[in-house]
Amino acid sequence: MKKSMIEKLGEECGVFGIYAPEKKDSISTISYLGLLALQHRGQESAGICVNDSGNLKNHKAMGLVSNVFNEEILNKLQGEMAIGHVRYSTSGSSMLTNAQPLLINCNKGYLSLAHNGNLINAAELRQNLESHGSIFHSTLDTEVIAHLVARSFEDNLIDALTQTLHQLKGGYSIVAMTRDNLVAARDPFGLRPLVLGRMETGYVIASETCAFDIIGAEFIREIEPGELIVIDRDGIKSHHYSSNKPYRFCVFEFIYFARPDSNIGGQNVHLARREMGRQMAREIKVEADIVVPVPDSGKSAAMGFAEESGIPYTKGILRNRYVGRTFIQPTQEIRDLKVRIKLSPIKEVIKGKRVILVDDSIVRGTTSRQIINRVREAGAKEVHIAISSPPVINPCYYGIDISNCQELIARQMDLEGICEHIGADSLNYLSIKGLLKSIKAVDYGFCTACFSGEYPVGSELVNKGVK
Amino acid sequence: MKKSMIEKLGEECGVFGIYAPEKKDSISTISYLGLLALQHRGQESAGICVNDSGNLKNHKAMGLVSNVFNEEILNKLQGEMAIGHVRYSTSGSSMLTNAQPLLINCNKGYLSLAHNGNLINAAELRQNLESHGSIFHSTLDTEVIAHLVARSFEDNLIDALTQTLHQLKGGYSIVAMTRDNLVAARDPFGLRPLVLGRMETGYVIASETCAFDIIGAEFIREIEPGELIVIDRDGIKSHHYSSNKPYRFCVFEFIYFARPDSNIGGQNVHLARREMGRQMAREIKVEADIVVPVPDSGKSAAMGFAEESGIPYTKGILRNRYVGRTFIQPTQEIRDLKVRIKLSPIKEVIKGKRVILVDDSIVRGTTSRQIINRVREAGAKEVHIAISSPPVINPCYYGIDISNCQELIARQMDLEGICEHIGADSLNYLSIKGLLKSIKAVDYGFCTACFSGEYPVGSELVNKGVK
Amino acid sequence: MKKSMIEKLGEECGVFGIYAPEKKDSISTISYLGLLALQHRGQESAGICVNDSGNLKNHKAMGLVSNVFNEEILNKLQGEMAIGHVRYSTSGSSMLTNAQPLLINCNKGYLSLAHNGNLINAAELRQNLESHGSIFHSTLDTEVIAHLVARSFEDNLIDALTQTLHQLKGGYSIVAMTRDNLVAARDPFGLRPLVLGRMETGYVIASETCAFDIIGAEFIREIEPGELIVIDRDGIKSHHYSSNKPYRFCVFEFIYFARPDSNIGGQNVHLARREMGRQMAREIKVEADIVVPVPDSGKSAAMGFAEESGIPYTKGILRNRYVGRTFIQPTQEIRDLKVRIKLSPIKEVIKGKRVILVDDSIVRGTTSRQIINRVREAGAKEVHIAISSPPVINPCYYGIDISNCQELIARQMDLEGICEHIGADSLNYLSIKGLLKSIKAVDYGFCTACFSGEYPVGSELVNKGVK
Amino acid sequence: MKKSMIEKLGEECGVFGIYAPEKKDSISTISYLGLLALQHRGQESAGICVNDSGNLKNHKAMGLVSNVFNEEILNKLQGEMAIGHVRYSTSGSSMLTNAQPLLINCNKGYLSLAHNGNLINAAELRQNLESHGSIFHSTLDTEVIAHLVARSFEDNLIDALTQTLHQLKGGYSIVAMTRDNLVAARDPFGLRPLVLGRMETGYVIASETCAFDIIGAEFIREIEPGELIVIDRDGIKSHHYSSNKPYRFCVFEFIYFARPDSNIGGQNVHLARREMGRQMAREIKVEADIVVPVPDSGKSAAMGFAEESGIPYTKGILRNRYVGRTFIQPTQEIRDLKVRIKLSPIKEVIKGKRVILVDDSIVRGTTSRQIINRVREAGAKEVHIAISSPPVINPCYYGIDISNCQELIARQMDLEGICEHIGADSLNYLSIKGLLKSIKAVDYGFCTACFSGEYPVGSELVNKGVK
Repeated sequence: MKKSMIEKLGEECGVFGIYAPEKKDSISTISYLGLLALQHRGQESAGICVNDSGNLKNHKAMGLVSNVFNEEILNKLQGEMAIGHVRYSTSGSSMLTNAQPLLINCNKGYLSLAHNGNLINAAELRQNLESHGSIFHSTLDTEVIAHLVARSFEDNLIDALTQTLHQLKGGYSIVAMTRDNLVAARDPFGLRPLVLGRMETGYVIASETCAFDIIGAEFIREIEPGELIVIDRDGIKSHHYSSNKPYRFCVFEFIYFARPDSNIGGQNVHLARREMGRQMAREIKVEADIVVPVPDSGKSAAMGFAEESGIPYTKGILRNRYVGRTFIQPTQEIRDLKVRIKLSPIKEVIKGKRVILVDDSIVRGTTSRQIINRVREAGAKEVHIAISSPPVINPCYYGIDISNCQELIARQMDLEGICEHIGADSLNYLSIKGLLKSIKAVDYGFCTACFSGEYPVGSELVNKGVK
Repeated sequence: MKKSMIEKLGEECGVFGIYAPEKKDSISTISYLGLLALQHRGQESAGICVNDSGNLKNHKAMGLVSNVFNEEILNKLQGEMAIGHVRYSTSGSSMLTNAQPLLINCNKGYLSLAHNGNLINAAELRQNLESHGSIFHSTLDTEVIAHLVARSFEDNLIDALTQTLHQLKGGYSIVAMTRDNLVAARDPFGLRPLVLGRMETGYVIASETCAFDIIGAEFIREIEPGELIVIDRDGIKSHHYSSNKPYRFCVFEFIYFARPDSNIGGQNVHLARREMGRQMAREIKVEADIVVPVPDSGKSAAMGFAEESGIPYTKGILRNRYVGRTFIQPTQEIRDLKVRIKLSPIKEVIKGKRVILVDDSIVRGTTSRQIINRVREAGAKEVHIAISSPPVINPCYYGIDISNCQELIARQMDLEGICEHIGADSLNYLSIKGLLKSIKAVDYGFCTACFSGEYPVGSELVNKGVK
Repeated sequence: MKKSMIEKLGEECGVFGIYAPEKKDSISTISYLGLLALQHRGQESAGICVNDSGNLKNHKAMGLVSNVFNEEILNKLQGEMAIGHVRYSTSGSSMLTNAQPLLINCNKGYLSLAHNGNLINAAELRQNLESHGSIFHSTLDTEVIAHLVARSFEDNLIDALTQTLHQLKGGYSIVAMTRDNLVAARDPFGLRPLVLGRMETGYVIASETCAFDIIGAEFIREIEPGELIVIDRDGIKSHHYSSNKPYRFCVFEFIYFARPDSNIGGQNVHLARREMGRQMAREIKVEADIVVPVPDSGKSAAMGFAEESGIPYTKGILRNRYVGRTFIQPTQEIRDLKVRIKLSPIKEVIKGKRVILVDDSIVRGTTSRQIINRVREAGAKEVHIAISSPPVINPCYYGIDISNCQELIARQMDLEGICEHIGADSLNYLSIKGLLKSIKAVDYGFCTACFSGEYPVGSELVNKGVK
Repeated sequence: MKKSMIEKLGEECGVFGIYAPEKKDSISTISYLGLLALQHRGQESAGICVNDSGNLKNHKAMGLVSNVFNEEILNKLQGEMAIGHVRYSTSGSSMLTNAQPLLINCNKGYLSLAHNGNLINAAELRQNLESHGSIFHSTLDTEVIAHLVARSFEDNLIDALTQTLHQLKGGYSIVAMTRDNLVAARDPFGLRPLVLGRMETGYVIASETCAFDIIGAEFIREIEPGELIVIDRDGIKSHHYSSNKPYRFCVFEFIYFARPDSNIGGQNVHLARREMGRQMAREIKVEADIVVPVPDSGKSAAMGFAEESGIPYTKGILRNRYVGRTFIQPTQEIRDLKVRIKLSPIKEVIKGKRVILVDDSIVRGTTSRQIINRVREAGAKEVHIAISSPPVINPCYYGIDISNCQELIARQMDLEGICEHIGADSLNYLSIKGLLKSIKAVDYGFCTACFSGEYPVGSELVNKGVK
C-alpha cells in the first residue's frame, strides 16, 4: 500500500469498469466499492461515470473515494454500466480538471474515458492536434486520446478508438464507455495491469483482482497485451489490435504497488513479496537479533526474511492509523516530522537489539535516514537495512512517478555512500535475478527498466530527453 | 487501535494539556501533535483551547484531529498554555455541543475543561443543579462539573474545583485551565489513565505516554489516584483531595484501548499484549497450521501466541487502510459489508490451512462471525479462535461504551453457544488470572468489573439501574 | 427600509410568533414569510424555533432570512407553533451565539425566547445572576431573561416569566414559547412595537403589521404596554403585569424603522412620512427647481414635500439594487466608495438644477456629505437638504443602535456648522412639534429622548454612564 | 432594472474590459466595480479574467458579483488588462461550465472571451465544427467563436478573430483578451450595446455607460456597428470588418434592460422612459385619481405619465428589498407567492381610488394579473393599466430570452382578451410610433422585431424554425 505522507514511488491510477444491466440501482455502489479496493493506487481524486440508457452522467472530485461519494450522490448515479477511476498525481497537475473519468461529447457521440499509465508520445500527439485547431482543457494523456477519437475518420466510436490505440506509445490500461458499450484495452507490452471478471449477471474490469473480491466477482482472465475488448448486450468481443509482443509487465507492481491480496498472472502478490524476503535472506548474511518491518510496505518481505534467516520477526515500529493527510507543507524539516507522526518505534522492543529493518525500496533516502535515526533513538544497538528490490537508478516513462530522476539516491552514490548517508550499519538490496526468481507469474515477462535501463518501448524518444 | 467501522468497545476520550510560556507560537501545534497521537481514543470530535495571556480561545469541531485543524487555525491559537481533547461518542450524543474542551465564563472567571471517563452520579448532580436554576447546554458530564464549580462558595477556581471533585463519583481524568493555571486530576481509584511529562521548557499532561514521544517530551510520572496538580509560573503543586484507595486501573486499557507504544505503570502495552498471547498458548491447546491475527488489534497477542506455541505467525488477513468512515448506515446487512470492505483474507495463504485467529475481545459476536465466515470462504480447513481477554459479561460505568449490555454475547450464551454462533471450530478466552499475570505494571491494581462484576465504586448506584 | 451599506441608525430586531395547530406542515414556511417581511429590522442573523408536540427544534444562522433557510430546512421544521427572529447587531457582538431565538432547557421545561429592544438594567441583573453561579453563553439580554426564569421560585413557566418581567427595565417586545404555550409581552411604556393578528385557524404575533399582509393574516390589535398574553388550545389570555403607564412609543419607528406599508396605532407609516414632508414644506422656505429623495428612505417625505411646496418631485438618484453586502472594509476611503456603489445621480436630470434633497435623518454626516458631493459633481447648481426629523443629539437606551453618541454630528455642531460640514447650500430639520403633529396614531404617546433628552424610564441609570 | 423573481424578459449578459498597465494592483477591483454596475444585465454567474504579463487567470462562479468575488480573490487577480462578464440565463443552461469569460489555450495562444447577445447560426457552425473533430464543453455561443478561432488558418489571434466574425450571424457584443491585446467588437447592426471610455491611464469597454460612472471613467464614444477595436501598448486601433449597415439597436434596451442612469446614443435612458410615459398620456385617455408605478421598472414612465396627464404620481406599491433569490420553485402557485413576497400595496393609499398602474411590458400576463388582484384587494375602486411599450408578439433571435413565444399573451389574445385575462378595467399599450418618437438617440435606428416582426438579419434562418 502506498504511504501518502512518506516519499515513495507513485503510480498514476486505478481503473474500474462494470457492465451489468440488471444492477441498475446498485451499479454506482458496486463501482464505489471497487474503487475503495483500488484506493491504494491513487488518492488525489476519484470519479464514477454511469450510463443510464445511453445518458452518461459523471461525478468526480478531489479527495479519497469515501470523501468524493456519499449515499445521496451514489443514489443519483444509476445505469446499466459504469466506469471509475482513482488518480494519483504529482503536485503540479493536482487539480479537478485532471480528475477522471473524462467525459466528452464529440461528433461520434458521448465517450467516457479512464486511464492508468503514461504515453511517451503524448506531447507530440498533442502538439499535432493543437496545430490543427483542437482545444485542450487539461494536461491529461486521456484528453489526447479523446481528441484522436474525435478526429478519426472512422464513424464508429469503437473503430475510432481502435485506430487511436495504434497511434499511442507507452504503457496504458484503458476503460472506456460509449452510449452502447463498455470497452477495455491494454498496451501491446502489458506494462500496466488489467483484469476481467464475472458477476452473477454481468462483467467487471479492474486494475487488480482485489477489486473483484470486495464485490463478490469471479476472476476470468487478464486482458492480454495489445487486446481491446468490447462488452455489450451481445457479450464480450475481443480484438487484438497489436501484433504479439513479449510481455513486459511492470515489476514494481509486484514489489510495491499492487495490493498483497491481488493475484497477477496467477501469482499472489503477498506470497511473491514473502519470497523476495526469503531470497534476500539467501543472498545476504547479517547477524542480528530481530527482523523489523517498516510498516506497512516492508511486512511481507520481512516475514519471508525472518522465516529463511531464523531471526525472529518482531513488531518494533507502530504506524499511526489516524494521520491521514496532514496539512503541513513538505519542507525538509517537515519530512522529519512526518516520519515522527507516522511511525513510532516501540522502545521496549528495540532497546539494546541488533535490528534488521526491511523495506521495499529506497527513493531519495530521506525517509530511510529518518526511520533509522528514530530506531537508533529508541535504543537499537545496530541498525541494518534490507531492501526487497534492486537499486532504482532510471526514470520510468510508463506511469511510475519518479518526478526527478536526479533525486534518486542510487543514481548519485554507490552502495557504501548510501549506507553512510542513511546512517545504517549495513545496507543490502535484492538482486534483479533474485527478484525475478521470486515471482512465479505464469507466461509473464517483466519491465525492469528502472533498475536495468532496458526500456521495452520508445527508447528512441526516451533517449532524447532526460526527465 | 480502535476500528471505527467494526463493532468494538469504545472509550470516551483522550485528554492533553501543556504549560509552556516560552512556546507561545507553537503551543497549538504541539497540542495538535499530542492529540494526533491520542486519536485512537476518540474520532468523533476534537478541540484545543489556548490561554493567551489570560484570554482563552477555543476551537473544536466534529471529525478527526487532522480535519478539525489546519495551519491557519493553529496559527491563530497562540498562548502560554493549552488543553486539548479527542472524543469518542455513541451516536445519540454525537453533536458539536458535546465536543470538548468546554469553555465557560463564570463568576470565578474563565474555566476550560476536558474530561475522559464517566461519572456515576452525573444524572443526580445535574437534576439537583437544574432544580436550583442552572441551565444546561449539553449532555456532558463535563458541564455538570462546570456548574458545580460556578455554584461553589469557594471564591478561588482551584478551591472550587477541588470542592467539586469531592462530589463526583466514577472514573475520570480531567485537564482544566483557568486564566492562570493548568490543572490535572485523576479519580480516587485511578480508573482512567493520566500521565505527567516534561518538555525542555514546560510541562505536559496526557492520557498516554505515546503523546509525549511525538512531541519529544519526557515522562515524569503518573498522576496518582485522587491527586490534583496545579501548574503555573511557580511550578507544579500537588494536592491529594482523596484518601488513599487501592489502585483500580481499567484493565481494558491494556487489552485494547491504549496504544501499543504507550507505557502504563512502567509496562509497555505491546509487550503486555504479547505476553497475554503467550499466556493463552500456555492455557489452551489447539492443533493448527498457522496463527493469523485479526488486524490490527490482534497482532501483538498473535505474535506471543505464535512464539509460545511454535505455530507460525502468518499475515493472512489484509486491512484496507483507505476506508475511513464510509457513509453506510449500520444495519445488519451493512455490518457484513463493513467487514468485507475493511478486511480481506489472502486466499493463497489460508487455503487448506487449519487457522488460529487471534483477536482481543468479542462483544456481540457479529464481527467475529463475519470474519470467520470470510476466512472459511478463503478456503481454511479449520478456524479456531483465541481471544486475549476473558468474556465480557457486565456493563462498565466508568467510561467504556457498552451501550446495551443485553447485546453482550457472553451474557447470553455459554462458551459452546458462542462458538457455534460465530461458526468457529473452537473458541478459547484468556483467563482473568492469566490476564492479570501478563501485566507487569508496578504498584497497579485493576478494575475487572466487566469480566468479574466487582465494581470498585458506586455499586449501590450500579445495582439500581441496568444500563 | 434600512440601508445596510450606508450609515444609518440601526434597530435591534424583529420578532414573529404563530400558534396554528392545524398548519403543522406549513408553520415554518409561514414564519419564514413573516420574517422576510420583517427583514428590514435586522439582517445579521435569522432563526425559527418550532414546537412539534412539545418537542422544540431551533434553526438559526448568520445571514439574511433567504440565506439561512431553504426548502429542505423548512420541511424539517414542523409544529403546532413557532417563534422567529431577525437580528440587527453592531459588529462587536455579531456572532452565532448571539443569534435568536434562544432555546433553553431549564428546571421548568423547555423555553424559547426572542426579543426586540434593550434592557437598561441587563448588566446589573447579569452580575447578580453570575455571582449566584449562573453561567452565561452569550451577551444577549435574552439570556438574562432566561436565567431569571430558571431561578424563579414559581414552578410554572408562565408565572416565572411574569415574575421575571417585573425585574426588567427598558424597552422590549418579547415572543416566547414553552411546550404548551405561545407567549408575547411588551414593556410597560410600549417603547417597541408588537401586534396581534388572526389567521383562518390560529393567531400570529409580529413586530409590524406588514408581516400579516404577506401571510394573509388579519390585524386584531396591538399588544398593550405592560401586557403579557398567553396563547394555547384554550385561546388567548391577557395579563397586565404592569400598572398603567403613559404610552411612550419610539417615534423613530415612524421616521425610519418601520416599513411604509405597516400601520401603527391605526396610522399608516408611509402616510405619516408623507405628512412629515408636507409639514417640512410648511415650516421651511427654500427656492428650488426639483425635489429629489435620497433613496429609499427619503421618498415618502419627499413626495409630501413636493405636494405641499409645488416643486416637482423628481427621480434624480438611482439606487443599485444588486450591491448587497460587499466585502469592503469600513475605512474612511471606503465609505465614499460605498455611496458611489450604492447611489448614482442621473446627470441629465440634475444638471443646472437647484435641488432639494430629502432624507429622513443625519447621523454622522459623512454619508450626507458624500451624497451632496456626488449631486454637485452631476451638475446641480444648488443643493439644499431637508431632513424629516429633528436633530439626533442623545443616545438611545431602548434598542436603537447609536454606538457612540460622540459621533452624532448634531451633538458636535450647530445647524450652520453641519450645513458647512456636509457642503449644503442650506439645511433644515423638521421640528419636534411638527413631527408629532404629523403622526395620527390613536391614543399614542411618544418617546423623543434622542431629540429631547426626556427619557421615560431609567433616567437614574442613564445618568450614571454615557454610552 | 431586472426583477429576478417576477417574470420579465431577460437579456443574456453584460461585458466589461479594461486596459490599464499602470493599475496592475487594482485592475480586478475596478473590473469588479464595473460588473457591479452591470449586475442588472445578468445575475446567474460572474467572472473576471486578468492578464498578468501574458499569464491569463480566470475566476468565475455562479451567483451575484458580490458573492463570486471577495477581497482575497481580487487581490490574487492582478494584471495589466482584464475582461469581465455577468450572465443571465434560462434555467436549462444555468451551470458553471456556461459561466464566462471563457479562457482557452489554442494553437494561436491564450484567448479569453466574453460575449453578450445571440448568434442565429450557432447551431449550424457548431455542427460543422464537431463533424471535423472539435470537442465542445459547454453550450455557449462563445465556445463556437473559440473553436472558429482555433481552426482559422490565420496565424495571428487578431486576424483569426476578425476572420471568425465574418462567419457569425446575429446580435453580439464581444470583449476578448490575448496575451498582448484587449479586443472589443460589435455586430454589423449594432444590435447589442457596447461603449468605449477613458480612465486617467488606460481604456475601458462596457455594455453601458453606468459602468464608467462608478469607476470614474469618461465616455469617449460607442463601438460602431461592424467595428473591431484592438487596444495595446500602442493605443487603440479600429477595424471595420463589416460594410456599413443601418443601425438596428435593440429598442428594448431603452424600454427595460438598460440602467436609467446610462446614456445610449447621447440619450439618457431614464429621460427616454419618462418621455414614453408622457407620450402614453397623450395617446390614451383614462379618468383616474392616482398614477401608481409597478416598482421598479414602471417608475420613470409613471412619472412622465403623471406630469403629462396631471393625475398625481403616488407611491402605492412597496417593493421588498431583502427578498433576493428565494428557493421556492416556479410553479403556478408560487408565482402568486412571489408577487406577494416582492410587492406590497399600501392599502391606506389605494383604498377607494381609481388607480392607473404603469409598467414597462407584459409578457405572459401572469404577474400583471396578480398585481392587479393585490391592488384590488387593497381596496382600489378601479384598476387601469398602462404599458410603456407595444405588445410583444414575436420571438427575439438576438439575445433577449423569450423562451417560448407561444407563452406571449399578446400572441394569443387581442387587447380586450388580455384586459379581461389580467382583470384590468382598461389596458393601453404605447404605440410603436410613439415609442420611437420618445427616444432621441442620435444617428440611431432600432430593431423592433419583437413588436413588428421586421428582423434585420437572418430572417431566412428565422423563418425555418419557430422558437
